[in-house]
Amino acid sequence: MTDRSLRVAVAQIDTTVGDFSGNSEKIVAFGRRAEKEGSDLVLFPELAVSGYPPKDLLDRRSFLAESDRTVARIARASGSAVWLFGAPVENRAKSGRPVFNAAVAARAGRRVGEYHKRLLPTYDVFDEGRHFEPGRGRPLVLRVKGMRVGITICEDIWNDKTFWKRPLYTVDPVAELAPLDLDLHANISASPYTLGKERLRRRMMGQIARRTRVPLVSCNLVGGNDGLVFDGLSKAFDGSGRVVGRSRSFEEDFWTIDLPGGRGPMPPEESEVAGLRKALVLSLADYAAKCGFFEAVLGLSGGIDSAITAALAAEALGSQKVLGVAMPGPYSSKGSLRDARELAKRLGIRFAEIPIGPVFEAYRRALSPAFGKGDCVPAEENLQARIRGALLMALSNRFGYLVLSTGNKSEIAVGYCTLYGDMAGGYALISDIPKTLVYELAAEINREREKIPAVILAKEPSAELRPNQRDTDSLPPYSELDPLIEALVDLSLPTDAAARRAKVSPEVARDVARRVDRNEYKRRQMPPGPKVTAKAFGEGRRYPIAQRFGV
Amino acid sequence: MTDRSLRVAVAQIDTTVGDFSGNSEKIVAFGRRAEKEGSDLVLFPELAVSGYPPKDLLDRRSFLAESDRTVARIARASGSAVWLFGAPVENRAKSGRPVFNAAVAARAGRRVGEYHKRLLPTYDVFDEGRHFEPGRGRPLVLRVKGMRVGITICEDIWNDKTFWKRPLYTVDPVAELAPLDLDLHANISASPYTLGKERLRRRMMGQIARRTRVPLVSCNLVGGNDGLVFDGLSKAFDGSGRVVGRSRSFEEDFWTIDLPGGRGPMPPEESEVAGLRKALVLSLADYAAKCGFFEAVLGLSGGIDSAITAALAAEALGSQKVLGVAMPGPYSSKGSLRDARELAKRLGIRFAEIPIGPVFEAYRRALSPAFGKGDCVPAEENLQARIRGALLMALSNRFGYLVLSTGNKSEIAVGYCTLYGDMAGGYALISDIPKTLVYELAAEINREREKIPAVILAKEPSAELRPNQRDTDSLPPYSELDPLIEALVDLSLPTDAAARRAKVSPEVARDVARRVDRNEYKRRQMPPGPKVTAKAFGEGRRYPIAQRFGV
Repeated sequence: MTDRSLRVAVAQIDTTVGDFSGNSEKIVAFGRRAEKEGSDLVLFPELAVSGYPPKDLLDRRSFLAESDRTVARIARASGSAVWLFGAPVENRAKSGRPVFNAAVAARAGRRVGEYHKRLLPTYDVFDEGRHFEPGRGRPLVLRVKGMRVGITICEDIWNDKTFWKRPLYTVDPVAELAPLDLDLHANISASPYTLGKERLRRRMMGQIARRTRVPLVSCNLVGGNDGLVFDGLSKAFDGSGRVVGRSRSFEEDFWTIDLPGGRGPMPPEESEVAGLRKALVLSLADYAAKCGFFEAVLGLSGGIDSAITAALAAEALGSQKVLGVAMPGPYSSKGSLRDARELAKRLGIRFAEIPIGPVFEAYRRALSPAFGKGDCVPAEENLQARIRGALLMALSNRFGYLVLSTGNKSEIAVGYCTLYGDMAGGYALISDIPKTLVYELAAEINREREKIPAVILAKEPSAELRPNQRDTDSLPPYSELDPLIEALVDLSLPTDAAARRAKVSPEVARDVARRVDRNEYKRRQMPPGPKVTAKAFGEGRRYPIAQRFGV
Repeated sequence: MTDRSLRVAVAQIDTTVGDFSGNSEKIVAFGRRAEKEGSDLVLFPELAVSGYPPKDLLDRRSFLAESDRTVARIARASGSAVWLFGAPVENRAKSGRPVFNAAVAARAGRRVGEYHKRLLPTYDVFDEGRHFEPGRGRPLVLRVKGMRVGITICEDIWNDKTFWKRPLYTVDPVAELAPLDLDLHANISASPYTLGKERLRRRMMGQIARRTRVPLVSCNLVGGNDGLVFDGLSKAFDGSGRVVGRSRSFEEDFWTIDLPGGRGPMPPEESEVAGLRKALVLSLADYAAKCGFFEAVLGLSGGIDSAITAALAAEALGSQKVLGVAMPGPYSSKGSLRDARELAKRLGIRFAEIPIGPVFEAYRRALSPAFGKGDCVPAEENLQARIRGALLMALSNRFGYLVLSTGNKSEIAVGYCTLYGDMAGGYALISDIPKTLVYELAAEINREREKIPAVILAKEPSAELRPNQRDTDSLPPYSELDPLIEALVDLSLPTDAAARRAKVSPEVARDVARRVDRNEYKRRQMPPGPKVTAKAFGEGRRYPIAQRFGV
């Protein structure tokens, strides 16, 4: 189409929601660097100015006003290159929602273009239809150095009829750009990480580039924000759909590429489980930093869940910033305390031991008149977990630690966990990791060196809340439970189809489905944790508590 | 326009989400009754077949299949009248979301019409844009006995350009119906209660009837579903916009009216605070019944919050189904225990006393090595609250009680409450009631008879977690705090405007605003409770936890 080319810079930054001054400093710094390196166009992530997702902060007029001021300040700082960055922008029409999810283009100190996102994801963890008015105008084609750059924002390119079986939207911005004789697709995004998603993105974007024969560059957000973690992995494709440049995953990154024809950096690809580990580490590091925590505390039971949580916390915050607390109870095995201590030693984290026996006895005495005779076992099991939760919270209140809860997705799905007990905490780091994946993650953590003692990986899972208790006393083996949860929760399959898929009996599937539904009340009160699967409990899965659907 | 008239029946029913058999039994029973009473048209609420809101249950294909079967079964039961009822209906188009929020019309055993809701509320507590594809067809005009009935669903009539300053949607179904020579507007809805909303609805619907000179009848849902309570108050308006028939509030109701010209029942109106009381009672009664609870437990501190919660619980569940537990601690005043006991006696609820001193001492001993020297006061205050939470949860685990938490909106807004302590529970009955309104509610409860001892109403608010503590030690007086919270939370005003509105200093407003933002993490883990104000914490207010916006 042309033998000229554009130098495009990709500034994959980690933004903080509401931190207009911090975010804009990053944008200006990278914008200037891009200009110094001779770039014609520099891309920043979606909503880079406000952070993503700003959620109901968008209801505050002062938030929009601050965004406007910041956009103006950034635009004034722009020079020889076109800076393209995301920001919430007021909708001045007489009807419709009051805000657009916009891409603002600035050059030579002034705004030179504005595009409003048309496809607003409103499913799973996304609430964009709640906050934004969809853009209705023509596609935006920016002229940069005489070349035609078609602008889109994230979801805008996720509705290709030739790629998806059933497009969710009736319009397709990419199809509308097709006849406009583009030289480049520029997409800015805030596309969160989930396991396996990167392959999908690459195929999907590659197909757009190939089908339209136009190079595509996409700048994605990186960083953790509450329950979402963004992996970055910004990419450039040539007009044949091949990846010709890629950012590093899970960290800020900056690079330039000449399009068409040039090549950007191509950092080595990592395994899925290595990516998962980075996702968890970054989500915790960012949650702590953005909330103002420097140290974390967690209970060490001697089991695998708390072991990997401690190992990941040590990577995220530094070992000396993590305190592991063993809280042996009347039914804890001797091995548990020993294993917890050994784990702390190998990880180099701080360690404390607080036996719960005397508190448990005091509770039993206090409750005995009200309890009377009869089965007190479930109540007393939960009590032990709640004492541990209260001890960790007391340490948090005393020293300002962030409490990490250690429950995995399998337990949380079926309610094999205690509200205000092991579910207590500020961040539930592995709450979206099924137990079978917990083992894979442990193996990955131990790849370089046996950080987690082998004995912890080998022992049979137990809550140790009554004598000789084992998880399999109340649950199917995790090798059956995890595929079943995936079928029921991630895929919303009916129980009979879920049973077939997970290769379990229909009775087991019905029992597990019932438990999943009946424990919604516990999950409603669970702390946030990073989404890493297709369907995480929490904001992305909104279920009624009072309901009677049984199938 | 015509001198004929239609007999319209309004079946204001209380549905349960996912209870297809129970909901359809009600629909069929009232449909038959309407036919027996000579009705031509009978209206049921929005999504009456599935219950409202079904939320992500709509993602399950089995849920939609069950809805389809149930719709067919109901249609087969219809006879001489047109039955108009709400149901989720599959979208068979090749793109778009897979479900419509539909109104199905049936008569003489078969379906005679289907309308798809066009305006899908996607704000506050509503997520309809997440679940439904908006209807795109023409307005539906049903022929009933030769008369022309225009069908709309709830929000469809809430976008009148002549009524709202800034319409949220760019289309207006009522305007599209205007030229179609209607004899009647029939609207089915699931419009939740909030304080003062009924006046707005009446003005809004009255204006539509008057402006179009067409009578309007609207059948609204009644009942509690998790955090929402629907007040019913279905209404008929004549062509001059006057109310000519109205259902009772907060209960199932059935009546008929001949339109135009006839009159329906007009139960006496109630005061706002009397309506609020009913809202709370119904929300709790339904939450318990729909979740399978028969009994409730709560802590009685001797203060006003737990007193009104206990009084309302006794009305909702029956006094003998409520257990009040006094849990005196080291800093409880003597009066507190005495007042709690007296309250239980006057309400006729069960009463138990469990002192927390020994458990508190056991915790202190357990924590003392880790705590070391320094300020342990905040940690120990929270510990007392958490012991109480754990005791109530133990009683719940032992006896199957629903735990009621007793925090009010003012406390929850500024985080003057303990996570896993007084915030623990299954239902937070007064979590959307500001403290000043708590007093009005207490006066209403005491109107017939002094159920709540006057001494409880007279005492100064205190958490009693340290010697001589008073709420005003850490908070502005509630007479200032509550208007400030309304300005900041309900109206999303900037702090300076909030300060002016609430007549407090900018410093106080900034401090309170900061507290509201910083305590989002606590509210994220709070149990559901009924929304009664314009903006309740919980699902209707979605804020990031990790964020740095400061204004």
